[in-house]
Amino acid sequence: MATTQGIAAGSVNAEVICVGTEILLGDILNTNSQFLALELAKLGIPHYYQTVVGDNPERMAEVIRAACDRAQILIFTGGLGPTPDDLTTEVIAQVFDTPLEERPEVLADITKKYSRRGRSMALSNRKQALLPVGAAVLPNPLGTAPGMIWEPRPNCLIFTFPGVPREMEQMWWETTVPYLRSHGFADSLIHSRMLRFWGIAESTLAEKVDRFLSLQNPTVAPYASQGEIRLRVSARAASEAEAYALIEPVAEELQAIAGADYFGSDADTLASVVGRLLSQAGQTLAVAESCTGGGLGHLLTTVAGSSVYFKGGIISYDNAVKMELLGVSPTALESLGAVSGTVAEQMAQGVRSRLKTDWGLSITGIAGPGGGTETKPVGLVYIGLASPAGVESHAFQFGVHQQRDFIRWLSACTALDLLRRCLMTIQ
Amino acid sequence: MATTQGIAAGSVNAEVICVGTEILLGDILNTNSQFLALELAKLGIPHYYQTVVGDNPERMAEVIRAACDRAQILIFTGGLGPTPDDLTTEVIAQVFDTPLEERPEVLADITKKYSRRGRSMALSNRKQALLPVGAAVLPNPLGTAPGMIWEPRPNCLIFTFPGVPREMEQMWWETTVPYLRSHGFADSLIHSRMLRFWGIAESTLAEKVDRFLSLQNPTVAPYASQGEIRLRVSARAASEAEAYALIEPVAEELQAIAGADYFGSDADTLASVVGRLLSQAGQTLAVAESCTGGGLGHLLTTVAGSSVYFKGGIISYDNAVKMELLGVSPTALESLGAVSGTVAEQMAQGVRSRLKTDWGLSITGIAGPGGGTETKPVGLVYIGLASPAGVESHAFQFGVHQQRDFIRWLSACTALDLLRRCLMTIQ
Repeated sequence: MATTQGIAAGSVNAEVICVGTEILLGDILNTNSQFLALELAKLGIPHYYQTVVGDNPERMAEVIRAACDRAQILIFTGGLGPTPDDLTTEVIAQVFDTPLEERPEVLADITKKYSRRGRSMALSNRKQALLPVGAAVLPNPLGTAPGMIWEPRPNCLIFTFPGVPREMEQMWWETTVPYLRSHGFADSLIHSRMLRFWGIAESTLAEKVDRFLSLQNPTVAPYASQGEIRLRVSARAASEAEAYALIEPVAEELQAIAGADYFGSDADTLASVVGRLLSQAGQTLAVAESCTGGGLGHLLTTVAGSSVYFKGGIISYDNAVKMELLGVSPTALESLGAVSGTVAEQMAQGVRSRLKTDWGLSITGIAGPGGGTETKPVGLVYIGLASPAGVESHAFQFGVHQQRDFIRWLSACTALDLLRRCLMTIQ
Repeated sequence: MATTQGIAAGSVNAEVICVGTEILLGDILNTNSQFLALELAKLGIPHYYQTVVGDNPERMAEVIRAACDRAQILIFTGGLGPTPDDLTTEVIAQVFDTPLEERPEVLADITKKYSRRGRSMALSNRKQALLPVGAAVLPNPLGTAPGMIWEPRPNCLIFTFPGVPREMEQMWWETTVPYLRSHGFADSLIHSRMLRFWGIAESTLAEKVDRFLSLQNPTVAPYASQGEIRLRVSARAASEAEAYALIEPVAEELQAIAGADYFGSDADTLASVVGRLLSQAGQTLAVAESCTGGGLGHLLTTVAGSSVYFKGGIISYDNAVKMELLGVSPTALESLGAVSGTVAEQMAQGVRSRLKTDWGLSITGIAGPGGGTETKPVGLVYIGLASPAGVESHAFQFGVHQQRDFIRWLSACTALDLLRRCLMTIQ
């Protein structure tokens, strides 16, 4: 193994460099960067830049030189294959003015792997046994191309990985993490809790929790996507227990400030939280869906074990199904239209009674792009909720210009959120 | 609009810069880079680097300066939000030594969007109306944060987009592509046709079409994801017509080789193809879902206008619902179990007769992670299909070790594929 005498642990930062013209052509979604980002964060090693560069030696060399100037750990993925395009090892060696040498143990390993698959090794694979003088082999248990661990000069530690995600990930866990830990690069750890909110705008939540956003340890950062707002509370500490001791009081304050708009943390989803509340209450649920076409039931059953509280539902895409299976009145359909509060209520009551559940939850709306009118534009959605206590409906306008899938997604999530808030009040 | 007098079209290259600490922390998978990569490739505009940088003004400035030295079109995503972390516009203006000014028309637009949603605008949102002097607004029809089009100096054209993918994509198609085309940045074009296949392994298809994979113009490249196999046929030509003249004969040969495993191209999905076949036949469909919980109906209704042929369905998650609403026999449930060919057939027949449709399609299976047994392991799924001609069922094993969501997805797609093949034989 290479030694790391030149790097003072604790003050390092890493940089991620993904090599491959196929990424620049959009043929491949670069998931390796996200994997490495999450893993580096867990180890408490900051990284400030990620770069993608094509299979071009001049541009690769430029990227390597820039990265060396600002980071102490350089992590490469891609460009270790047998084709003439695969240049990562070669270019790194050139930048540090070091010759390549063939490693007999690597060549033997590659040959063995080919013969095990009943194939003879192509001559081009021989190239994969070349490493710079002084570099250590980073073994690849799943594929033929090994990586390397190399410290070509003080304050510069290089890891190379193949671009295939499962090979890269295995090499990361098996060799790289133990290496970084044993060389003192991961003595302080970052732990996080993700707090999840629904029914509040990102800017409103950010203003409410403004004074937390400038904290240093833990830090609090807001995110928004697809209607859900999140606050990530992250602490750096020597142990997991210490990190959570920093996180918990802040998380509790944030939850208190947000009130019912906070719905859960970490792996929680609206569907899993609704499921937990229903289980706790020993109650059951059925759904009646029009514009979501099954999406609400699909979300609910994403949760393993949901059969305890979710009995099923009726997809009443057609008005005849609304009348015949859910008992929606023809008069209401005719005078008010399928997209109305009354029909939403009758759907919720109908499915509750047909499936003999405690709760009935319904959705009817105009997901577009067609079907909108002056009085009932695209994005108008009614959600109905029936229980032993009665029935209610709520109108929402999710945006005339929003896309069909997004309106359907918001409709299903908003229905879950409505039920969640009701279940919270009866707990 | 900004003018682009300084840039010689045809000799430009672009650079993609994604801003956001959340990407560096691994909280977000950077799909924007891939979208932009594909779109730039379609326009024939090369790009050689992609960079991710956190919400840090010094590092952002460094990245911008480096990008200006090597690219003529700079495309930014992220950092346009209302929080203090959102710095993209500000830092770009600083790098080019240009003051920001509040744009009244942008402020009015943001205020209107908030009031339409029944919310009052937070003060922090006001920041989103600031743009550098001289920059043109790049409108955002879906969200509050607009982008900009700005040529701060000759040979440097800047586009900024919010990080939210659907907002960014809409802004790209609506404004950016027309802008790039009308300013002469896209004179040699790459056009592609994506051919889609279901029910064949990637390696099998690749072997069947082996001789096409080394073509130069058009090129043929295979991809696989989530059960679907794709072949991308891309041609470079001076006009769209010339490109498709190169693509079509190859695409036709590939389709002929694949036979019924080919299901559609480009924006086609299994659901849209099934919908087209049902519409052509003037027939209707209803679904009965157990383990997919509504996912099959959800996929079918992703297609706008699906109400013509899709009437609805019954989510029979609970056995009582299978018996009472679908007429599944208690004996079959008891002796064979809910996950059996007989129950799948009775579900399909039941929903077809209850909803009075031509076709009834059903799914019952074990999606896991719990519920598997020696004889009925996780991943075992039965699909039933009922029509005036009778009823049939098919058993599938989607993998004991696969994840719940993936098994549910494969189940719904496989059901659609089964119906598709049946509909093809009766056309």
